[in-house]
Amino acid sequence: MTPNLPFETSEYEGRLAKTRAAMATADVALLVVSDPANMAWLTGYDGWSFYVHQAVLIGPTGPPIWWGRGMDALGARRTVYMGHEHIFGYEDTFVQNPEKHPMEDLAALIKAQGWAGSRIGLEMDNYYFTAAAYLSLVQALPDATWVNANGLVNWQRAIKSPTEITYMRRAARIVEKMHATIMERAEPGMRKNDLVAEITHTGIKGADGHWGDYPSIVPLAPSGADATAPHLTWDDRPLQKGEATFFEIAGVYRRYHAPQSRTLFLGEPPSKYRRAENAVLEAVAAGMAQAKPGNLTEDIANAFNGALNRLGFEKDSRCGYSIGLSYPPDWGERTFSLRRDDKTVLEPGMTFHFMPALWLDDGGIEITEPVIITETGAQSMCTTPRSLLVKA
Amino acid sequence: MTPNLPFETSEYEGRLAKTRAAMATADVALLVVSDPANMAWLTGYDGWSFYVHQAVLIGPTGPPIWWGRGMDALGARRTVYMGHEHIFGYEDTFVQNPEKHPMEDLAALIKAQGWAGSRIGLEMDNYYFTAAAYLSLVQALPDATWVNANGLVNWQRAIKSPTEITYMRRAARIVEKMHATIMERAEPGMRKNDLVAEITHTGIKGADGHWGDYPSIVPLAPSGADATAPHLTWDDRPLQKGEATFFEIAGVYRRYHAPQSRTLFLGEPPSKYRRAENAVLEAVAAGMAQAKPGNLTEDIANAFNGALNRLGFEKDSRCGYSIGLSYPPDWGERTFSLRRDDKTVLEPGMTFHFMPALWLDDGGIEITEPVIITETGAQSMCTTPRSLLVKA
Repeated sequence: MTPNLPFETSEYEGRLAKTRAAMATADVALLVVSDPANMAWLTGYDGWSFYVHQAVLIGPTGPPIWWGRGMDALGARRTVYMGHEHIFGYEDTFVQNPEKHPMEDLAALIKAQGWAGSRIGLEMDNYYFTAAAYLSLVQALPDATWVNANGLVNWQRAIKSPTEITYMRRAARIVEKMHATIMERAEPGMRKNDLVAEITHTGIKGADGHWGDYPSIVPLAPSGADATAPHLTWDDRPLQKGEATFFEIAGVYRRYHAPQSRTLFLGEPPSKYRRAENAVLEAVAAGMAQAKPGNLTEDIANAFNGALNRLGFEKDSRCGYSIGLSYPPDWGERTFSLRRDDKTVLEPGMTFHFMPALWLDDGGIEITEPVIITETGAQSMCTTPRSLLVKA
Repeated sequence: MTPNLPFETSEYEGRLAKTRAAMATADVALLVVSDPANMAWLTGYDGWSFYVHQAVLIGPTGPPIWWGRGMDALGARRTVYMGHEHIFGYEDTFVQNPEKHPMEDLAALIKAQGWAGSRIGLEMDNYYFTAAAYLSLVQALPDATWVNANGLVNWQRAIKSPTEITYMRRAARIVEKMHATIMERAEPGMRKNDLVAEITHTGIKGADGHWGDYPSIVPLAPSGADATAPHLTWDDRPLQKGEATFFEIAGVYRRYHAPQSRTLFLGEPPSKYRRAENAVLEAVAAGMAQAKPGNLTEDIANAFNGALNRLGFEKDSRCGYSIGLSYPPDWGERTFSLRRDDKTVLEPGMTFHFMPALWLDDGGIEITEPVIITETGAQSMCTTPRSLLVKA
């Protein structure tokens, strides 16, 4: 039985080689990968099982090893590229049981592989690699030397392959269609949840014959004063004339994300919103002009903030971050951010969410783009009109 | 501005008092709560911000303190019951920056409150409380004594209040409607993602005039051999005649979950599936007969497994877990499980997902119930027909 893998085996083998090279540089003999996106990128594994402890091991030689809950080992058999002899499941009594910790089982596996005395890299600040997991592992492997390898695999993912770019462009078609759904369906008096139901429906149906996967963040869709805060979700309050609502959403194809936000105004936007819109658009243009190979990520942020400040607005948070393959709770890749002092060199094939949101004192405006660095500059992967969405 | 709180202030105050009593028993002076569900239960906080470090502090006296990213402090102002002077935001440069950790800011706040030398409780095995968060906090507060308070707040949530039960019953109406949608819409040749789009649409629209919130787990909907694994999601493969698909889904109202699974068979189920169905239903009935105040959680599991084994089937994983308020990645409360040696005493108002799934060698059957313990026994909160869903 061959799993329906999203990539050729050779692409997984290339990723493994890149990761091993980075391990050598960091002097790490064994890498314990617990970020679900890194696990998927290295092996193909795909399942909603990250609510229990699991990992992929990259040892000094051989294919990756998948380790997790016994019942999820069956999911690994259905999704990873390695042979089944590289899949290990732990007993169910380890699940959410304060009497023992699954990391005791992982430690036994590491011992059995002969790696108990190695320099072992851990993703120390990854969701799902908890404090208890760390202490349990360290206690069970007293001869190991521990290295913080947080972000090591994430950085290998920064430049996208041609197939990854194809998937992100499919996701971009989906998010365009989601924004079109908003323009079509939104009207004063419509319950917010009813609109979110339509957006989600469009997102999962997909676009251009390609199906939609679930986003790593649900639609963020606050209206009016709630939109002064960036991360509220939805309720059933009806949409109102004279009110702005921003929609921070993503199209997703096989776990690859194209996030894009737009702000809907029902009725005629007051001049304050038009000024904010104008400032965001000019600042985005200034940032995009700096988005090209050889420049630094902070060049984009500095150009963006400079333009914004000249127009009388300020934004004290980062204006973007790397995107690609991801699992909840974040569709960012957690490598570079677009902000002052972030000195990542831009290269063709890098992708990021250019996220120039303005949260005002009585509302918010988000007009954002999923961007790819090309050979000569940058482009948004989407064609959604770059402006306030106004519906009279 | 008063937030639109899901509960009366008095209910939050009661929860705080219960939590403080448990802290006294555990000899904890300050509790750092990082589980988003515990944060919401204690303060009302609701936002998709758990992809950055955040916490609620319960000190020896006074209301809870909300702490998180600066931009999310604005979301806290919109959602928590406490005054704004109890909300603290950290600077954006702490976000996903390997140069420094947000826990340094939390440590400064704890010092400023005069709690740096306390016995401090941590949710050591909670999602989002990472190894790096722990090490950063411990290093910054050398005079503290650390206590593993994992599950301390979760256990206070085990018995539901009348309003919580009302919310879960609203969620139950929603999941009933989601299963009705499956029966209405599913047909051979339909792409799986198109069906999931309909299910999700129904879930967010809600039922009986109550809106639907997002579930903490997306629909799990594997067909055929993929259903030998419990946690696969969906793709665009068309539904097929002669194939079973299980749908593990939840209705959600204001973060309160009613999970329920059903298995759809298109065409006439083979006798093997009918035997499995019969075994599950008999075992569920045996388990439900033991679900009553004064009995133990393991009594349900033992009765269930005994019946199942007599009918020639085995299940080596837990057959249920506590449910209620939750955030991704898990709709369980991570307190009791229904399994041998779990000796939690059942009390009226406890709620759990009775999860008697059977994963067979060539497919799977899930027929599950969201259950509430009553004064005299137990009942499912749902009226969805308890059987295989068969559509010819």
